[in-house]
Amino acid sequence: MRTEHDFLGEMNVPDNVYYGVQTMRAMENFHITGEHLDPDFIQAMAIVKKAAALANMETGRLDKKIGNALVQAASEIIDGQWLDQFPVDPIQGGAGTSVNMNMNEVLCNRALEIIGKEKGRYDIISPNNHANMAQSTNDVFPTSIKVCLSMKGKKLTEVLKELETELDVKADEFKDVIKMGRTHLQDAVPITLGQEMGAYASAVARGRKRISRSLEGVHVINMGGTAVGTGLNAEPAYIKAVATKLSMLTGDIFVTARNLIDMTNNTDIFAEVSGNMKATALMLIKMANDFRLMASGPRCGLNELKLPARQPGSSIMPGKVNPVMAEVLDQTCYQIIGNDMAISLGVENGQFELNVMEPVMAFNLFHSMQYLTNAIHAFVKYLLKGVKANKKACQSWVDHSVGIVTALLPHIGYERSSMLAKEAYATGRPIREIILEHGYLTKEQMDIILSPQEMTQPGIAGKQVLEETYLAQQKISG
Amino acid sequence: MRTEHDFLGEMNVPDNVYYGVQTMRAMENFHITGEHLDPDFIQAMAIVKKAAALANMETGRLDKKIGNALVQAASEIIDGQWLDQFPVDPIQGGAGTSVNMNMNEVLCNRALEIIGKEKGRYDIISPNNHANMAQSTNDVFPTSIKVCLSMKGKKLTEVLKELETELDVKADEFKDVIKMGRTHLQDAVPITLGQEMGAYASAVARGRKRISRSLEGVHVINMGGTAVGTGLNAEPAYIKAVATKLSMLTGDIFVTARNLIDMTNNTDIFAEVSGNMKATALMLIKMANDFRLMASGPRCGLNELKLPARQPGSSIMPGKVNPVMAEVLDQTCYQIIGNDMAISLGVENGQFELNVMEPVMAFNLFHSMQYLTNAIHAFVKYLLKGVKANKKACQSWVDHSVGIVTALLPHIGYERSSMLAKEAYATGRPIREIILEHGYLTKEQMDIILSPQEMTQPGIAGKQVLEETYLAQQKISG
Amino acid sequence: MRTEHDFLGEMNVPDNVYYGVQTMRAMENFHITGEHLDPDFIQAMAIVKKAAALANMETGRLDKKIGNALVQAASEIIDGQWLDQFPVDPIQGGAGTSVNMNMNEVLCNRALEIIGKEKGRYDIISPNNHANMAQSTNDVFPTSIKVCLSMKGKKLTEVLKELETELDVKADEFKDVIKMGRTHLQDAVPITLGQEMGAYASAVARGRKRISRSLEGVHVINMGGTAVGTGLNAEPAYIKAVATKLSMLTGDIFVTARNLIDMTNNTDIFAEVSGNMKATALMLIKMANDFRLMASGPRCGLNELKLPARQPGSSIMPGKVNPVMAEVLDQTCYQIIGNDMAISLGVENGQFELNVMEPVMAFNLFHSMQYLTNAIHAFVKYLLKGVKANKKACQSWVDHSVGIVTALLPHIGYERSSMLAKEAYATGRPIREIILEHGYLTKEQMDIILSPQEMTQPGIAGKQVLEETYLAQQKISG
Amino acid sequence: MRTEHDFLGEMNVPDNVYYGVQTMRAMENFHITGEHLDPDFIQAMAIVKKAAALANMETGRLDKKIGNALVQAASEIIDGQWLDQFPVDPIQGGAGTSVNMNMNEVLCNRALEIIGKEKGRYDIISPNNHANMAQSTNDVFPTSIKVCLSMKGKKLTEVLKELETELDVKADEFKDVIKMGRTHLQDAVPITLGQEMGAYASAVARGRKRISRSLEGVHVINMGGTAVGTGLNAEPAYIKAVATKLSMLTGDIFVTARNLIDMTNNTDIFAEVSGNMKATALMLIKMANDFRLMASGPRCGLNELKLPARQPGSSIMPGKVNPVMAEVLDQTCYQIIGNDMAISLGVENGQFELNVMEPVMAFNLFHSMQYLTNAIHAFVKYLLKGVKANKKACQSWVDHSVGIVTALLPHIGYERSSMLAKEAYATGRPIREIILEHGYLTKEQMDIILSPQEMTQPGIAGKQVLEETYLAQQKISG
Repeated sequence: MRTEHDFLGEMNVPDNVYYGVQTMRAMENFHITGEHLDPDFIQAMAIVKKAAALANMETGRLDKKIGNALVQAASEIIDGQWLDQFPVDPIQGGAGTSVNMNMNEVLCNRALEIIGKEKGRYDIISPNNHANMAQSTNDVFPTSIKVCLSMKGKKLTEVLKELETELDVKADEFKDVIKMGRTHLQDAVPITLGQEMGAYASAVARGRKRISRSLEGVHVINMGGTAVGTGLNAEPAYIKAVATKLSMLTGDIFVTARNLIDMTNNTDIFAEVSGNMKATALMLIKMANDFRLMASGPRCGLNELKLPARQPGSSIMPGKVNPVMAEVLDQTCYQIIGNDMAISLGVENGQFELNVMEPVMAFNLFHSMQYLTNAIHAFVKYLLKGVKANKKACQSWVDHSVGIVTALLPHIGYERSSMLAKEAYATGRPIREIILEHGYLTKEQMDIILSPQEMTQPGIAGKQVLEETYLAQQKISG
Repeated sequence: MRTEHDFLGEMNVPDNVYYGVQTMRAMENFHITGEHLDPDFIQAMAIVKKAAALANMETGRLDKKIGNALVQAASEIIDGQWLDQFPVDPIQGGAGTSVNMNMNEVLCNRALEIIGKEKGRYDIISPNNHANMAQSTNDVFPTSIKVCLSMKGKKLTEVLKELETELDVKADEFKDVIKMGRTHLQDAVPITLGQEMGAYASAVARGRKRISRSLEGVHVINMGGTAVGTGLNAEPAYIKAVATKLSMLTGDIFVTARNLIDMTNNTDIFAEVSGNMKATALMLIKMANDFRLMASGPRCGLNELKLPARQPGSSIMPGKVNPVMAEVLDQTCYQIIGNDMAISLGVENGQFELNVMEPVMAFNLFHSMQYLTNAIHAFVKYLLKGVKANKKACQSWVDHSVGIVTALLPHIGYERSSMLAKEAYATGRPIREIILEHGYLTKEQMDIILSPQEMTQPGIAGKQVLEETYLAQQKISG
Repeated sequence: MRTEHDFLGEMNVPDNVYYGVQTMRAMENFHITGEHLDPDFIQAMAIVKKAAALANMETGRLDKKIGNALVQAASEIIDGQWLDQFPVDPIQGGAGTSVNMNMNEVLCNRALEIIGKEKGRYDIISPNNHANMAQSTNDVFPTSIKVCLSMKGKKLTEVLKELETELDVKADEFKDVIKMGRTHLQDAVPITLGQEMGAYASAVARGRKRISRSLEGVHVINMGGTAVGTGLNAEPAYIKAVATKLSMLTGDIFVTARNLIDMTNNTDIFAEVSGNMKATALMLIKMANDFRLMASGPRCGLNELKLPARQPGSSIMPGKVNPVMAEVLDQTCYQIIGNDMAISLGVENGQFELNVMEPVMAFNLFHSMQYLTNAIHAFVKYLLKGVKANKKACQSWVDHSVGIVTALLPHIGYERSSMLAKEAYATGRPIREIILEHGYLTKEQMDIILSPQEMTQPGIAGKQVLEETYLAQQKISG
Repeated sequence: MRTEHDFLGEMNVPDNVYYGVQTMRAMENFHITGEHLDPDFIQAMAIVKKAAALANMETGRLDKKIGNALVQAASEIIDGQWLDQFPVDPIQGGAGTSVNMNMNEVLCNRALEIIGKEKGRYDIISPNNHANMAQSTNDVFPTSIKVCLSMKGKKLTEVLKELETELDVKADEFKDVIKMGRTHLQDAVPITLGQEMGAYASAVARGRKRISRSLEGVHVINMGGTAVGTGLNAEPAYIKAVATKLSMLTGDIFVTARNLIDMTNNTDIFAEVSGNMKATALMLIKMANDFRLMASGPRCGLNELKLPARQPGSSIMPGKVNPVMAEVLDQTCYQIIGNDMAISLGVENGQFELNVMEPVMAFNLFHSMQYLTNAIHAFVKYLLKGVKANKKACQSWVDHSVGIVTALLPHIGYERSSMLAKEAYATGRPIREIILEHGYLTKEQMDIILSPQEMTQPGIAGKQVLEETYLAQQKISG
């Protein structure tokens, strides 16, 4: 045990730990989730601290010996060491002060060790004066969130790209699988399964770009704003340097906000990032649900898709296989939407110079990015890559459908087409038979108009017979 | 034009209107939604005002002549007159002061007329001193919301009861329609359509009770709490009397909260009522979606239900009919869930002695109750009453299904059953054929086990043959 | 390694683990959150399994030797053993089948050990035939959630009771601390700090009862409904017995739903429980925010409360102490509200005979209950018990206030009171001075009317001087 | 009365109305909100119809005489005529078919009139064959929503620009008003009121750009996709022409989506637009709340801002004035957030080739844009333009504060600064006095370091004295 103190008094700290008195207080105060800080976040904060130390050395304010030791300590954390030295609960009061001080304490104690001193000798290297030099939780914490989002965001957009690519593969694979298009869950007009896959790919691409675009905003940081954004205790040279160092260390361009006060007070960028994940999640739910519908059956449903069997589907129903990978994507997306609500409430509740609710935002943002990345990855790997079309079933639905009369519209008009449809539904007879019976078209004309190619591409199906059919109609009408 | 003044100064008020200067200010300040106050709410507030005037006369504080005129004016509003005299936007600042003063002004000016005086003679009958005697917006406004919720809540629970009753009718009508039960949208085991309808009825009953129970809370009022709940300027005799009068006027029991301060500060009851509407809406969405799925097709879907055709379903696809009444119920429920969020944010943002966000809560609560009542009513009238089962289709799905092997579990075990199912899926052959082929059961045994009655009621299907089949299995295994 | 198989094929399972092939598949499929199942939930499910085994032995269907071994295995889990044998991710597809099968496998393999057999000998004791006898994931999983909610709900309501009790203590402690009541964050009329604490206590009591009441619903279970609620493979005697056993094992009354199909299809009870937690959370946010406002300052804010100093408040601002326990309660409540949204989306998405989204509901329900319990506990322990009133500051605000003119209303009317207030604000002078100057009241009258006791209790402040003041006013007016 | 029919049968239609049988059916089916369609939306759809008619004439498919009559009818609607001919409830089933057919019927009947024919002569001009030529509700309806959002979005971004500009005016006006910065509602370090206003301006600018950027997406349309996005019955030449015509008519560039199927199936753009309004609303709430806090009092609060008095604040408390314009902005933002939830649920529930929930999305999107525009406009006009700083109060808080010790950090270190702060809080004495007493600084040094300019701009406050103070500290320490 060593004894440490802060202005609230003394506390005993176990000898072997690198954190100190303030971390100890936070551990006592906050037992909410029982979860640990996200390792990516710890590493992101270490990068920010390293950048600050480098910048402080560059401006000459931080002693090189101390600075280098702090930099080494930070590098070790970035490399994955000491991650077990961050015991603070992610949902915490104090706007992240506990995480920042946890980091400052670990850096100091490790730096003290590096320069051959004992842990706790804060008179030599101080968590507040050195590790936190020219910094405040109020700039370090949100900036670290942003660095972490940038890191996690890359993985998320990569996995969205994977999904898009694989959907494009399927679009090609299924390009000749004609199937019934459905609106309102009611039979509409034919489409190809490849077209559907291509539409998902297109939507996923939009979702990816949307997230990428909002991630640009997380590269605008408030380092140097210190306590309230005015930059008290942070020299302009340092402010400039810290963004440069951070960019160098991460390989991404991080820029200092023009208005540091705004960037310290407001957290709407987190709502934006989360909101755009939500928009994308909503679209993914729709896609996953379509897969579930198409795979429904196999005997008593649409049975248009065969999903890879991933696990027995029931503890009681033998032979049952469920679309578990689509279901887990759905649920993950619900979680993202719920997290967005928690984030929104956090963003709503800023006051004056700070939004103290940043910890709950970080907690949910990191979860959302991680979960979504995982679920999409699993969907691609375990469902999409192995999905097979049931061509026969798809064709069979089309063959029985009535909705194809839509293609007759330019030829015989809406009203006559409606009557044909009505008759087909009433009698249960095939629509083709009824069309021919009424003599509106010859068999040749009908086959041209109702060919899959004609019906699934822009244009008037069977345009080449338009004049013939028109003349025929005139005759029938007249 | 007459000139009125308040402590901010003078304003011209058109001669013909019953509202006055404070309403005029509110009209200028608040152009947000362009909607009008809910007529039920205006009437609810008139009831509250009438109760207060009666109570104030009873305690002797309010002059009878003035009091009677105010009571008459309130009665006229309750009877549906003067509803056009409430031009204030429902979303407003001031925690409802504008509505309360609008009401006070209308009451006064109408009362002045009744006693033969000119509008605007507030020296004779004053909006603040007489119409608002012993009251504050902070008790009148939330109490009026509650009276309105009580009124609207009755209609909502009635229509839920109608839905339940009609579902029970359908449960009976469809009690012999055997159909495939589905879990994960995958074939499970048979069930009857009547059982499904009965399950909806049961769920709707629970939803109704849930809403009823939370409506009990709106009968606890804070009249007499005045500005901050301490009851300043409200005598105990009045406080007692006002609840009694309100109960008499409405025919419902309204009771004074034990802790008037709590009841003035906190609005969690509104979140509770809305949250319970949300829970019920979520269940209704599930029901509506099941109807949409069962009515899917008609040629390329499940086609188990025939919904009444309410309107042509497409501007381009002839003969298409869509499940519009289920779709509008879904969307209404989404609105209820969205409104719940707006209400929640309002409830969240109380401070100290008041929650000034009550107007947005009222706006959304009234909408939610009204919309949900309307949508359920329409669903019952235009969809449910006319829905028909497609018995043939239902039976046909069951006949083709494999999931019925679940009934064999007690007879031949999970593993053998699984293998039968697997074989059926792989070969596409009927499961009954495969069962017989393997010799696990005789045809007679199979028919008993797989009879609809056996499979859709609790118990081991074909229990009477259990010993026979068990012995047979032993032999096969051995 | 041992080899196990299911109908999808064989897999190697490490010798030392108690779970089997289906758990292995689930581990591969689901890497979403990286979290573990809640230990309470594992234990709740073990209780359900124990109840089922006992019931199956009672009806004679389950062999005693096998049954007793399964019961012992379940008891061990209930006692906290084998919790590390449940590696499945809480967010999963398959509606909880993976958790149920994980449990079935652990129970079987441990039971096999108990009877002296090797793990994996499912021909002797089978996960599906014995551990899952007369059960389906579709009744076991939601029932286990309910048992877990019942357990966690007790802790939550207990901690709410603690909060209420401590608030009542403070209500008493602060009953003579007169302070300014505020509405719209604007000065209103006086109140005591004790009254405020009492109002919170009253609101918390309501919140507790609301949650308790909705927890009643989780005691209605669907055990015996099996796959789709029809009870296929579950005999009536078993259905009756399993609820009885469960009640005995838990000490709570669990009853079988009248309509097992409804109870299998619908999950609205989870939305109800969560919604009622949300309603309570919203109220707690308001309370926590009031504490934050009252503790604002200390020099540049209201400074009415002194919160215990729990940790240094800033890495840069020396001496700063923040209301961290209130902040963490706020954030926890935001999480509860976000979780409610995820749960709502789950509940929305049931289809036909099952809602496959139960895993995400369970995940969020358990988190919400646990987090809220933890945050309230910490709020009581680290903030509320140590909070001190700053009596002097409270009194000083009242002394400077103008809002107390409200008490003059019954004496001199709204209009004159308004003019006095306006003058006070315009000149910055004390309101008492101005009142006297205008000669509306004598000093004696004023002191009676404006005494704290008169102003913070129901009734007309200074009623005893009412006639005098009224006569005086007549004279002044006349 | 005239008689019209569709394929469901005949209906009587009043002679004087321009809508027809399908509108009549929709009126019967949908009584949900009682609201009318947004006039902007009707006009937007008329523009789309006009563009389609022009395009159809250009490709030669639509007869000029009919086409020109339809174009004239559409132009009249665009000019504000016939808006009373759209009686359909905005929340409706059928994915907007009722609105589209309402429009088609009005256009036809008016066009028939224009060419001198009777209403109802659909054999001459047909709602489906002519007004809807090459169109489907599934491309017309979402495209019309987008045109409407583009129109409303312009007004919203303009009003956000107004807000930004006025905040910049205030930033300049208040640039010398030094005040206490607050974090956690606790005293932090000084800032100027102008800096705060500038930070709001900066955040509002970001909000505006965010909305603008997401509005780009609404300019990608699916006209020509027809029923399911495949373009059945729409010729490539028409598809190209319709976007061009629409761009010409609106003066905005509308482009045809590359993937018309995606653009017909997916509605995530609406979630994106709404989500970005939500993100901006969250930031506005924070701003409005800050104004409410700064205007708190006037005697018992911060009293840093004087808001224009817009209306008497209480029916019972004389002289009270409330921050009603900030309160109504808050509530409007809550509504936007609630609406976002309803929209999200809509977007979530697309299936296959269409999302039939578009009506509820449109309803909420239009409300959100309109309400937010109105509330911001009112906030600028009635609050912001008239807001005054209470310079004296602001200065006085700073003078009493302790938080300014933060500026001493670089001079005397964190620990000594903390001790000074602690002493100040404990004794209630001015911090300046204590600093001098301890001899850490001379009065001259202190005055330099603690000057407002030094403390509110980036850099080490009093850097010029850094060496002196450092040397002095060394002496004291040593």
